[in-house]
Amino acid sequence: MTYIAPLADIRFALREVAGQSDVAALPGYENATEDMIDAVLDEAGKLSANVLAPLNRVGDQQGAKLENGVVRSPEGFVDAYRQFIDGGWNSLPFDPDYGGQGMPWLLATAVQEMWQSANMGFGLVLLLNQGAIDAIQHHGTADQKATYLPKMISGAWTGTMNLTEPQAGSDLAQLRCRAVPNGDHYLVTGQKIFITYGEHDMAENIVHLVLARTPDAPPGVRGISLFIVPKFLPNPDGSPGKRNDVRCVSIEHKLGIHASPTCVMSFGDDGGAVGWRIGEEGRGLSYMFTMMNNARLAVGVQGLAIAERAYQQAAAYARGRVQSKDDTKPDPKPVTIIHHADIRRMLMTMRSQIEAMRGLGYYTAAAIDCALRHPDDAARRQAQDRADLLIPVVKAWFTDLGNEIASLGVQVHGGMGFVEETGAAQHLRDARILPIYEGTNGIQARDLVGRKIGKDGGETMRGLIAEMHALATELEVVPGDDMAVLAGSVETAARTLEEATAWVAEAGRADIGAALAGSAPFLRLAGTALAGWLLAKGALVAHRRLVSREGDPAFNEAKIVTARFYGEVILPPALALLGPLKSAGRTVFALAEEQF
Amino acid sequence: MTYIAPLADIRFALREVAGQSDVAALPGYENATEDMIDAVLDEAGKLSANVLAPLNRVGDQQGAKLENGVVRSPEGFVDAYRQFIDGGWNSLPFDPDYGGQGMPWLLATAVQEMWQSANMGFGLVLLLNQGAIDAIQHHGTADQKATYLPKMISGAWTGTMNLTEPQAGSDLAQLRCRAVPNGDHYLVTGQKIFITYGEHDMAENIVHLVLARTPDAPPGVRGISLFIVPKFLPNPDGSPGKRNDVRCVSIEHKLGIHASPTCVMSFGDDGGAVGWRIGEEGRGLSYMFTMMNNARLAVGVQGLAIAERAYQQAAAYARGRVQSKDDTKPDPKPVTIIHHADIRRMLMTMRSQIEAMRGLGYYTAAAIDCALRHPDDAARRQAQDRADLLIPVVKAWFTDLGNEIASLGVQVHGGMGFVEETGAAQHLRDARILPIYEGTNGIQARDLVGRKIGKDGGETMRGLIAEMHALATELEVVPGDDMAVLAGSVETAARTLEEATAWVAEAGRADIGAALAGSAPFLRLAGTALAGWLLAKGALVAHRRLVSREGDPAFNEAKIVTARFYGEVILPPALALLGPLKSAGRTVFALAEEQF
Repeated sequence: MTYIAPLADIRFALREVAGQSDVAALPGYENATEDMIDAVLDEAGKLSANVLAPLNRVGDQQGAKLENGVVRSPEGFVDAYRQFIDGGWNSLPFDPDYGGQGMPWLLATAVQEMWQSANMGFGLVLLLNQGAIDAIQHHGTADQKATYLPKMISGAWTGTMNLTEPQAGSDLAQLRCRAVPNGDHYLVTGQKIFITYGEHDMAENIVHLVLARTPDAPPGVRGISLFIVPKFLPNPDGSPGKRNDVRCVSIEHKLGIHASPTCVMSFGDDGGAVGWRIGEEGRGLSYMFTMMNNARLAVGVQGLAIAERAYQQAAAYARGRVQSKDDTKPDPKPVTIIHHADIRRMLMTMRSQIEAMRGLGYYTAAAIDCALRHPDDAARRQAQDRADLLIPVVKAWFTDLGNEIASLGVQVHGGMGFVEETGAAQHLRDARILPIYEGTNGIQARDLVGRKIGKDGGETMRGLIAEMHALATELEVVPGDDMAVLAGSVETAARTLEEATAWVAEAGRADIGAALAGSAPFLRLAGTALAGWLLAKGALVAHRRLVSREGDPAFNEAKIVTARFYGEVILPPALALLGPLKSAGRTVFALAEEQF
Repeated sequence: MTYIAPLADIRFALREVAGQSDVAALPGYENATEDMIDAVLDEAGKLSANVLAPLNRVGDQQGAKLENGVVRSPEGFVDAYRQFIDGGWNSLPFDPDYGGQGMPWLLATAVQEMWQSANMGFGLVLLLNQGAIDAIQHHGTADQKATYLPKMISGAWTGTMNLTEPQAGSDLAQLRCRAVPNGDHYLVTGQKIFITYGEHDMAENIVHLVLARTPDAPPGVRGISLFIVPKFLPNPDGSPGKRNDVRCVSIEHKLGIHASPTCVMSFGDDGGAVGWRIGEEGRGLSYMFTMMNNARLAVGVQGLAIAERAYQQAAAYARGRVQSKDDTKPDPKPVTIIHHADIRRMLMTMRSQIEAMRGLGYYTAAAIDCALRHPDDAARRQAQDRADLLIPVVKAWFTDLGNEIASLGVQVHGGMGFVEETGAAQHLRDARILPIYEGTNGIQARDLVGRKIGKDGGETMRGLIAEMHALATELEVVPGDDMAVLAGSVETAARTLEEATAWVAEAGRADIGAALAGSAPFLRLAGTALAGWLLAKGALVAHRRLVSREGDPAFNEAKIVTARFYGEVILPPALALLGPLKSAGRTVFALAEEQF
């Protein structure tokens, strides 16, 4: 089963939901003309479908292999990576001063969706590099930027994020890796685990960003600094030089993303890995936070991407597999299973949530662009607040859905779904990491309730809710049953989210335990409601196009049907989390540890 | 991580929810004294924990292997199987006339839960054998029973069910395997796929039950007959004789249950496999249906079992893993993660649904016993109707939850959950087959709505709902907040299920497409509501025990807290499926095939 980039859906979400033209009009994005964006999307679609997607199963079967300290990529990956960077794809959203193309994050997000749908095991190297580039861009010295950014932005070198240690996962305060000053640099020692693409054979150098403690640093998070530790120390001419004292000592045997080596990295076995501090001492963790929005958005987009891939495969199977008669017709002849009610329910559940995610994900990317580029201070600030609020929702809700939708993809295949050759199971295995890494979904829910709602008492959320009410009002006056149903569901979603937000804001002050016990259901309610709003917004555009006979009527009709299914079938159980999120605190803490 | 049979919870569900003493009082179950049942549970707990559970990971890692036509079990499996049958465990619920112990299905179900929790890959051979024994017991001739039942009931021989062919999965009408009369037997030819334990090295003979067509049989299901095709033809003295013309030609590479060989079986490559018809010509499929209740209950119990295993592992990890401070306390010291709100929410979600499933599963097993043994005709009929109604709910809802709970088990482990060595991921991989085999969950939902509600217009369901109302009334007058909350949630569940049932019954007559589009949400609503009733019933018992200072107060308190969590957190989103189940039909059929 191949992957075909859903360009029509992607363009619709970019233009009609996320406001592509507003983003393209921001200062600094002058190159992002409509033609240019279209061309980029077309070419990315080709590369993802023709080069990356066919390697997805190879990557799963062969996996990355560690042999004598060298990690070998699965067959075809080195060549695909070369094609990828030769095409200039890695540089799309980055600073033109260092070789980037300076395109909007909105476009980069749409393109990212395609890479991750096509081949998540491959796509991970891009995400990690993006995070490392962001960190150096924001916090590096001019020299550091000049040395590393051009290589990393072109993709000749890749970056990693070295955070986790065995005793320090979600709780980075427990870090023990050390960095001792030694002349113009530091010597870094210690062990890091779960390092994605910590070692591989696709790039000529690997730039590790490492969190470590300096001597005499205070305990806890304020003692943590960030260091650049390249695999090969750069020569004065910029080429990779002497091998640094850092190595991959083992790779994990994982449930999925087999192509992506998850490394145990050992720093300083021969005395200390040479590293250079980024920014000030003791601010390592706060630097990490500055790049987290992009990284978490990207992981959320992986959830969307794997869901899209699973959906395409399931829909294709359902169109081809003949089994049993149509229950709604007298004809006893077996039909393709796409005629069966429950198969359709599963496919609609998949596609409606995929489109919902796509709208919300792209909307969030547009907010990031706006926060970076908008000429007006207040607009920039509002956009930043919205991005900050939406990021944990995107990361957690998308990745939960990615798993649910990949599981539905298996189910549509029946017995064949459980057989690895079919490929549906790989998506489920690959998807399972997403709710865990880059901050578990529990951490995201805590961030949403504790920091984001806590920060402004729900003010930013109320700004979004006001727009939901406005859309509902707009929909109400449009004739026809579909728009009336959508008006009702957007209004109900807005009111429910309003009540939930008010409760969470209050509980966050009065009873943090209760607020956190309800944080995961709150996040799901919020994600489902907000994405439903954007889906309805798209449906209204589709309706107006149908009326004005603009565009493909089948496409526009499908947008309306899909939004209505979402409003009538997907939304109600999510809104019914209002009671649970308020009451979970009553029982969640009631049992003693030993009663579990 | 080991498995410990949750004997206290199992006993509670048997006695207080499923009515163990009523079942034990049925004619024919005289041996099922309380002491005997207790002893059986204790010993099953030991065997499952000490022998079967330690082989679970070995089975996953090594898998079953096909070499030169022989399937080799993973290390230790042959010996474990020998211990299992030497202990007489296989014969527990079967007919004493053929060496069985004639114990209630209720007890067999509780014991089955333990085998499946301990080692699902191993446990599958038992389930398949059980199904084959049932078929021969109900439909075989006296000679067939005498030849096969003693061997199969002891476990010396195992059985298989050969149904599926590549073009005939859910739709068995498409079967092509042939059986041609040849003297006193038939010659069977054709290929079967997805044959669980179709070949293995743990038993001295394998008895294949095969669906095939006789010459001149009509097309469709009425042309299908059932045949016994043993791997070795029995000698007159009952020992395995000549090798039959049936072989395993390949085994599937699957997502999970690696220890269980899923075979492609080829019949008659050398002219025809010798087989004997069971029962009448053309009734093969109806014979299959008669044994489906037990088989589907058993698969549902696998969902419960894998959930219990995942829960035990997650709870143990959460009690041991230290990470981050307690958000509800000022102390900055990191604590075990079981203190964190969202970890607790996940554990409570797991345990409350596990206890809910156990209650409903055992209740259904008790109904099967009652339907078999009750001296009163009307009581037998009512019990059979209830079992028939509940079976698709148990099969589908339990197995969906098995997957959701295994996935939560991975999540509680964080990054370690994604690493195969931890073992949490195996449960998720193993669980994924459950919603597929023995009738996909979509087929179960169709059975529930189309046949079971369709048969009596919802009368049997209304009988259960009446008992829900009665419990709510009983709970209302009990003092205390917990019982009041449970009274409210049981009453709301009863009313919602009542409305949903009425709608489904009506739609089933008026618009079968709409009824089927809502069938899966209806099944989930029904399962969640009915199991909530039984959970509340148990909580009331626990409350009374607390008041009368009977039993372990911590155990009784936990039962109440768990039921309340379920009522406040788990139930509302499931009851909110009422709207979706009614409205799904409006959009599910709206898109053309090519719009997907």
